[in-house]
Amino acid sequence: MTDRIGALRSHFDSGKLDGYLVSEANSMRYLTDFSGGTLLLVPQEGQSVLFVYGVNYEAAKVETKGAAVELIGPEEDLAKRIASAIKGLGLRHIGFDSLRVPSYLKMKELLGGAELEDAGDAVWSLRRVKDETELTLMKKAAELTCQGMGKAREIMGAGLEEREVAAEIEYEMRQSGSDGVAFETIVSSGANSAFPHGGCGDRRISEGDFVVIDMGAKYRGYCADLTRTFIIGKPSPKQAEMYETVRRAQGSAVSRIRAGTEGKEIDRLAREQIAAKGYGRCFVHGLGHGVGLDVHEPPTLGPTSKDVLVSNNVVTVEPGVYIPNFGGVRIEDTVLVLEEEAKKLTDAPTELGS
Amino acid sequence: MTDRIGALRSHFDSGKLDGYLVSEANSMRYLTDFSGGTLLLVPQEGQSVLFVYGVNYEAAKVETKGAAVELIGPEEDLAKRIASAIKGLGLRHIGFDSLRVPSYLKMKELLGGAELEDAGDAVWSLRRVKDETELTLMKKAAELTCQGMGKAREIMGAGLEEREVAAEIEYEMRQSGSDGVAFETIVSSGANSAFPHGGCGDRRISEGDFVVIDMGAKYRGYCADLTRTFIIGKPSPKQAEMYETVRRAQGSAVSRIRAGTEGKEIDRLAREQIAAKGYGRCFVHGLGHGVGLDVHEPPTLGPTSKDVLVSNNVVTVEPGVYIPNFGGVRIEDTVLVLEEEAKKLTDAPTELGS
Repeated sequence: MTDRIGALRSHFDSGKLDGYLVSEANSMRYLTDFSGGTLLLVPQEGQSVLFVYGVNYEAAKVETKGAAVELIGPEEDLAKRIASAIKGLGLRHIGFDSLRVPSYLKMKELLGGAELEDAGDAVWSLRRVKDETELTLMKKAAELTCQGMGKAREIMGAGLEEREVAAEIEYEMRQSGSDGVAFETIVSSGANSAFPHGGCGDRRISEGDFVVIDMGAKYRGYCADLTRTFIIGKPSPKQAEMYETVRRAQGSAVSRIRAGTEGKEIDRLAREQIAAKGYGRCFVHGLGHGVGLDVHEPPTLGPTSKDVLVSNNVVTVEPGVYIPNFGGVRIEDTVLVLEEEAKKLTDAPTELGS
Repeated sequence: MTDRIGALRSHFDSGKLDGYLVSEANSMRYLTDFSGGTLLLVPQEGQSVLFVYGVNYEAAKVETKGAAVELIGPEEDLAKRIASAIKGLGLRHIGFDSLRVPSYLKMKELLGGAELEDAGDAVWSLRRVKDETELTLMKKAAELTCQGMGKAREIMGAGLEEREVAAEIEYEMRQSGSDGVAFETIVSSGANSAFPHGGCGDRRISEGDFVVIDMGAKYRGYCADLTRTFIIGKPSPKQAEMYETVRRAQGSAVSRIRAGTEGKEIDRLAREQIAAKGYGRCFVHGLGHGVGLDVHEPPTLGPTSKDVLVSNNVVTVEPGVYIPNFGGVRIEDTVLVLEEEAKKLTDAPTELGS
């Protein structure tokens, strides 16, 4: 693991902060390799400290890298403990990623004159650019995800319950080494497929259905995200047109992504292509999002995105067309942004039909 | 579904609040039956409004109960939109469950004189007492969970990888109707079992191991939580003593719980029983927690709990003893608190051995 705490420090070093409080679980995991911390205090100089409750203390002592581990007692007031650590180090301007309002207000009061400032971007500026260790894990997560989708393709057909398909996908991924799912598997069929987050229930898949499958494996904490849409039986002309519209928009968006691409611009290109076929109002979400330890993270590809992609961002590209009471199509890959191209980490067929 | 928004209103009606902002996903689901909302505004009088992004808008129109649905545009500033809704209704003192600090500060500024106050307890005072609809779903979640544990008991033995056991448990639950897992399944064996959140990896289970399995199904959003500890082969005298100590502490804690029990007191009783056997320092976490749409929610059974249990709370009872470099034992059930007793929702054998 590269010195990520050092990288975080050098990020806020140049600014006005002299300390940083991390409380997002995955950011603490990213910075220390340990996922059971409660708060991580990173001063500009000297030792960082991971505060841990008793339930995770023994594991923390073994697994934490780059920070001292301190035990929080069961009777202790956490805000007081942290405020006193901050005061003890003489820090005057502390950034944080994500405090709850009551903790924020309490700590602010306890800290007296010291400033406490929302600075979530500091960790994200690191986490959004994946290093080699992370990319190895993400490739594995993507590979397991494709195996799961392969299983879905193999068994897909009329008569199956949505939930049965999810069961087979997840079992396949688990048997191959997945640590679980990156998010709740979506298998939404028929009219349900018109809801982008249509869930997965006991509906039986029928002839003529669209079936949207949106799923991802988790591997050593890292997520992948893949969507394919199946059509059961022979597609109607309208189904075929919707499908081809989405497939082409997705393919051409992926082919245009590289370092320097604006998140807003690539969304606009895909959106225009879909609008040109008359489905402009049916693409009801952004084009994509970053993926890593979180399944939704920066950067964003969408109409209001201010992000510009750089090498080693990992993002989804997932246009969709949804027609209420008819059905929906979404095609999504997780791609790695490189200098000259985007490389698909997920690679599953997009041919029509099951 | 009972009128939960009405219940929330009558809760803050008597107080000083004239409106309430809900942003916890599961609280919005609890109040409106829809899980894809972004913010729910509940004024003391008049129509509640669920604000929803485009991706979930069509589903929200079909599924939301008890609140109007309003679309948030992709270009819109959410804090501005909400602040203007609050001002439009003339609300002066708004409670909230959980805003992010930047949104809180921004909204506070936009609202001018109106007060914005942390009041998370208002929703929790409802959610912690389960109604009949919820109990039916929780019983089903618990039943599926026990089925998963039954599968683990059936296959348990030396030579299996931890992850394989998790795969079989989850597949069994999914096939029986589970919507997924309530949390990442823990199967931690040998020395790993000494870490209460020991995870689930590729270690092969061996003769003489403790194997802690902590798992739960999710059913229609509701969680169950069950832990059993297996011993592979003949237990050593020390293993048998640790196991019996935990089993008895758990059994007697469950038998003492009823409406009126203090969370602090029941924790103390279990802790004393474990300490009497010399394992006081090895019980490194609280006795239990509430379960519902969240797998960890109020009330709490622990050394600093201020909660007093009431009928229709659902809580876990899960003492454990962990010895670094040796192994750990935890036994946990999800129980329903009634006037005169606690009824186990999870009911799986606790006999020693596999």
